[in-house]
Amino acid sequence: MTAAFLANNLWVLLCGLFVFMMTIAVGLLEVGELGQRVVVSLVKTILITGLAVLVMAIVGFNTAFAPTLGGVIGNPLYGAGLFLGGFSPGLSDSWWSVTGAGLRTGTYFLFETAFAAVTLALVGVIALHKMKLSAFAIYSVVYFVLIWALPAAWIWNPSGWLAKLGMVDFAGGLVVHGAAGAAGLGIVWQIWREEKARGLKVSPPVHYQVNPGWLTVAILLLWVGWFGFNPGSVLAFNDEAIIVVETTFVAAAAAMVSTSLTAFLVTSELFNPLYVVNGILMGLIVITPVAGFVSPGSALILGLLCGPIFVYAEKLVGRAKWLSDPVGLFPGHLVGGIFGVLMIAFFAQNQFATGSGFPGLPNGLLFGGGVAAVKQLGIEVLGIGAAVVAVFVLSHLTVRVLAALMKGITTNYGDADGVAATPGASATLA
Amino acid sequence: MTAAFLANNLWVLLCGLFVFMMTIAVGLLEVGELGQRVVVSLVKTILITGLAVLVMAIVGFNTAFAPTLGGVIGNPLYGAGLFLGGFSPGLSDSWWSVTGAGLRTGTYFLFETAFAAVTLALVGVIALHKMKLSAFAIYSVVYFVLIWALPAAWIWNPSGWLAKLGMVDFAGGLVVHGAAGAAGLGIVWQIWREEKARGLKVSPPVHYQVNPGWLTVAILLLWVGWFGFNPGSVLAFNDEAIIVVETTFVAAAAAMVSTSLTAFLVTSELFNPLYVVNGILMGLIVITPVAGFVSPGSALILGLLCGPIFVYAEKLVGRAKWLSDPVGLFPGHLVGGIFGVLMIAFFAQNQFATGSGFPGLPNGLLFGGGVAAVKQLGIEVLGIGAAVVAVFVLSHLTVRVLAALMKGITTNYGDADGVAATPGASATLA
Amino acid sequence: MTAAFLANNLWVLLCGLFVFMMTIAVGLLEVGELGQRVVVSLVKTILITGLAVLVMAIVGFNTAFAPTLGGVIGNPLYGAGLFLGGFSPGLSDSWWSVTGAGLRTGTYFLFETAFAAVTLALVGVIALHKMKLSAFAIYSVVYFVLIWALPAAWIWNPSGWLAKLGMVDFAGGLVVHGAAGAAGLGIVWQIWREEKARGLKVSPPVHYQVNPGWLTVAILLLWVGWFGFNPGSVLAFNDEAIIVVETTFVAAAAAMVSTSLTAFLVTSELFNPLYVVNGILMGLIVITPVAGFVSPGSALILGLLCGPIFVYAEKLVGRAKWLSDPVGLFPGHLVGGIFGVLMIAFFAQNQFATGSGFPGLPNGLLFGGGVAAVKQLGIEVLGIGAAVVAVFVLSHLTVRVLAALMKGITTNYGDADGVAATPGASATLA
Repeated sequence: MTAAFLANNLWVLLCGLFVFMMTIAVGLLEVGELGQRVVVSLVKTILITGLAVLVMAIVGFNTAFAPTLGGVIGNPLYGAGLFLGGFSPGLSDSWWSVTGAGLRTGTYFLFETAFAAVTLALVGVIALHKMKLSAFAIYSVVYFVLIWALPAAWIWNPSGWLAKLGMVDFAGGLVVHGAAGAAGLGIVWQIWREEKARGLKVSPPVHYQVNPGWLTVAILLLWVGWFGFNPGSVLAFNDEAIIVVETTFVAAAAAMVSTSLTAFLVTSELFNPLYVVNGILMGLIVITPVAGFVSPGSALILGLLCGPIFVYAEKLVGRAKWLSDPVGLFPGHLVGGIFGVLMIAFFAQNQFATGSGFPGLPNGLLFGGGVAAVKQLGIEVLGIGAAVVAVFVLSHLTVRVLAALMKGITTNYGDADGVAATPGASATLA
Repeated sequence: MTAAFLANNLWVLLCGLFVFMMTIAVGLLEVGELGQRVVVSLVKTILITGLAVLVMAIVGFNTAFAPTLGGVIGNPLYGAGLFLGGFSPGLSDSWWSVTGAGLRTGTYFLFETAFAAVTLALVGVIALHKMKLSAFAIYSVVYFVLIWALPAAWIWNPSGWLAKLGMVDFAGGLVVHGAAGAAGLGIVWQIWREEKARGLKVSPPVHYQVNPGWLTVAILLLWVGWFGFNPGSVLAFNDEAIIVVETTFVAAAAAMVSTSLTAFLVTSELFNPLYVVNGILMGLIVITPVAGFVSPGSALILGLLCGPIFVYAEKLVGRAKWLSDPVGLFPGHLVGGIFGVLMIAFFAQNQFATGSGFPGLPNGLLFGGGVAAVKQLGIEVLGIGAAVVAVFVLSHLTVRVLAALMKGITTNYGDADGVAATPGASATLA
Repeated sequence: MTAAFLANNLWVLLCGLFVFMMTIAVGLLEVGELGQRVVVSLVKTILITGLAVLVMAIVGFNTAFAPTLGGVIGNPLYGAGLFLGGFSPGLSDSWWSVTGAGLRTGTYFLFETAFAAVTLALVGVIALHKMKLSAFAIYSVVYFVLIWALPAAWIWNPSGWLAKLGMVDFAGGLVVHGAAGAAGLGIVWQIWREEKARGLKVSPPVHYQVNPGWLTVAILLLWVGWFGFNPGSVLAFNDEAIIVVETTFVAAAAAMVSTSLTAFLVTSELFNPLYVVNGILMGLIVITPVAGFVSPGSALILGLLCGPIFVYAEKLVGRAKWLSDPVGLFPGHLVGGIFGVLMIAFFAQNQFATGSGFPGLPNGLLFGGGVAAVKQLGIEVLGIGAAVVAVFVLSHLTVRVLAALMKGITTNYGDADGVAATPGASATLA
């Protein structure tokens, strides 16, 4: 490999490893916000991690990233991706869509598999304490083969129909965060259907019980993970990758301050750990789809906008009686992810996008993009609509089928659904 | 340094750092499986980490990796390794046996020291709650100078007698996992001798008490560590190193599913966290000695074989009244490690082994290796026998001597043996 | 970028990420030593992390590292550092002072910002349980703009007045550890003034309550972080960076053994986790200012010296009635950091310093440095005096002003000062 190829593969592999840690970090975030009683979270995120690797290695990497069938879905039988090439993978072949940076199949596989896993972990926060773990495990398989793969195949796969239209989404404001929100809505609707059938008038909430140690480890791992998530999404180690480190970290820091202060204005409580942590997350989410297209200055502005958006969105979601969203999937990931995607049409600067591999992306409206920027906005809106609807429908259909087969997807709340260990309890091996 | 040398040293150093974290991760695994009462685990693994660095820097790196005396043990006085070169190390010299990849002494030292440390951490799970920490600390010194060094000098040192015969063990199915099991047996036998002398009829078991938070952090760190363990063992950053990422991760994921399902068939309990976690570990152990020799497809098959092997081996070990093995040293590391080494003769493909630096390794029986593969199987069996016997004998002799000097190596069970802090208790500094 | 530039940026960015984790690790260290009741520690270190990124991105990176105004402070308006270049950063420009290694602004920014953050985290251990979090947050802003920046601008900025005199401090024995101690003294003096005004005769101590899990995670993260801290401080990936891995790790390991044994001689207690952990830290601190100038052999000697120094210094500090220093800021960081800086004049070897970018540093007294070494000792002593006085005065003035504005900087002890979550308590989002 040439020097650049060596650096690119080394960078993206290591970034993939950092992202790989984020799935389990989401489980630790749940425990950090909701207390040790939600230990099923941890088994859930370990399972997601393993299932992602296995299902993506068999066929899910193909359905997302192999040359598409008509722009809709990757060819599941593409040789280099099916069972990762089986018994004779091309040792020194780059994956077809990233030959420019010389990324080997294994490099790109690890990176994208980690993304698929963490997306499902985000979906999973909505299933917490409510959905049977066995149902969620089966849902996972469908998710990695089909539900995660579609937006990826449409937008990140260069042969996808939205990519061909000119849609961009740098590190997954829509493909990860928005789609996680849409998939979560599909599940939460079914949960509410079952809750209503039991005669409930309000979806029982999961109460907060902050565990500062795990909350801290979670935010640390997530922040480190995002170092892989965004800078790694340049899919090369170049000058732009280093700029993305700046935009990502600055947005997170600015959002921490802005969210803490907004929450203080609303609640008079200073330094509530939940808002400090959610502020960081909101900054990281909002910058995700634009991190490789904007300047550090724009990242600072975007970070400062996060506080009011998150606090207001959380208040709105909190009014809905038919869902509980304790870890903030909807105000954080759904709203933040989509907001960030829309900001592409305002803050993008072509010079940065070129470094990220998108030399065709026009400047945003705030940087003189004019008509081209408005057109880009239209494309992004179309893409958001298409992906959100498709993911929501597929997710909901999947849980409807599961509900029919398994007599409902919900647990008897409070019950740990097939998980042997509850905290403090003793599990015995046979 | 050339581009390739830069990439190789960067890769192996970072992989060494990931492996370095695994020793303490083993301590967290003990706490995760057995509860916070085993806090001595944590002091133990911190001590192991520090002692490994110190003893290996003084002489242990030499006894394992310096040019050997007659193929048996590395020359302890070899200049570049003794005190790491003392006051005048060769700044830009590569270590003699890895000049091909240009690995500097410091790079190779960190990587192999991390391996030595984690091997002893695996031995240490058997000493848990039973062996005096002071005895274990002295044992550690002997271990790093001699007991760990022998299999490494024989197999991983190119001037070792087994290496010259053609024995291979990619990342330590025998040198790490099998040898840890053999050394543990040497200790456990002495523990049982002392238990019998106290009139015990059964070795008192250490009961499970799952702590999901620490268990999760442990498996996360171990999985990340294995990213260093196996892919780093190519000792270069090349195409094969990336394939090893695939084989390692796929085997772990497949073994997680296979072990969970096997345990479900046997116990009717789904998603027991101990089996989920042990499945991942078993997959990582079994793939370790072959990861650099096989295809992703073979890794998937090897992972699927792990479930039945682990569950059955655990049942067998559980029948023995004279030992307790709560964290699974014998069914996991001893059985899994040796099984993996034997699989070299079945699943190896010369094209992968060439990328790992073993162009002479023949294809396995399943890939047309024929007579050469059978011969390879014989060599591997010979190596397993020689290393297991030598390590077992040396380990047992060491604890016998310690027992004579210290009036037994066992604690009064339940007592924390010289460790000030018990969980919740308050320790005061003088 | 050339191969060397790629490797240098990749190395320093990753090292920066490892150091980035250390700030929160200091919070976990506080919890590990003092128990879960000090959860405010965790919010504090998350806040420090975010504020460091934000304030350094706006102007603090400039005040430390931009071309200085008269050798005293970096030009706050230097274009490439102000808001990280704002909307038009130089995409492929290296930062002016590190063009030799080709380090991009983002690379150097992340690395140094992580250093600034962890320095304040060390200062913060003294504020623990006693200083209002709101006061500490405002102090942080002043700290990153001015107090941290001065020693960095004087010593690490090549246009600083001490750097021009020939002062060196490899990775921050003075700029980080010594200065943290001096800043902490400035705060502790004000705390004592307020405590005296309340009629207290002794500063109320914060008692130890070891939490082994968090203590272990903390020391693991700190050790891993130091892999970035010292080896990354070569600011390039070259042969010397690999030597620094050796010196750093060997000193830590030797100090662990030496501190454990010294403590055993003094207290008769073996393997007290606090001394095991503090030994590792002391070794890492003492080697920090010399790691890039000395041989592995010297590192071993320096590590062995750490035990007696730490245990004796701790005893001395413990006699002072007017301060409490539960986590060891003064005996560890202040004493250890300054001791290490002085050792430059004894143990340095020009061949190593050349690899670290200081070809003008003479050999130390123990390596035939003679008059030049004595002169170097004088420069180091001058630098220590100037930096400690300046930082102490600025830190104390800052808290005096804050005390005047906020009616004192101390809390009603035991109260969590504006932090919503106490362990076990339930926090509710509005």
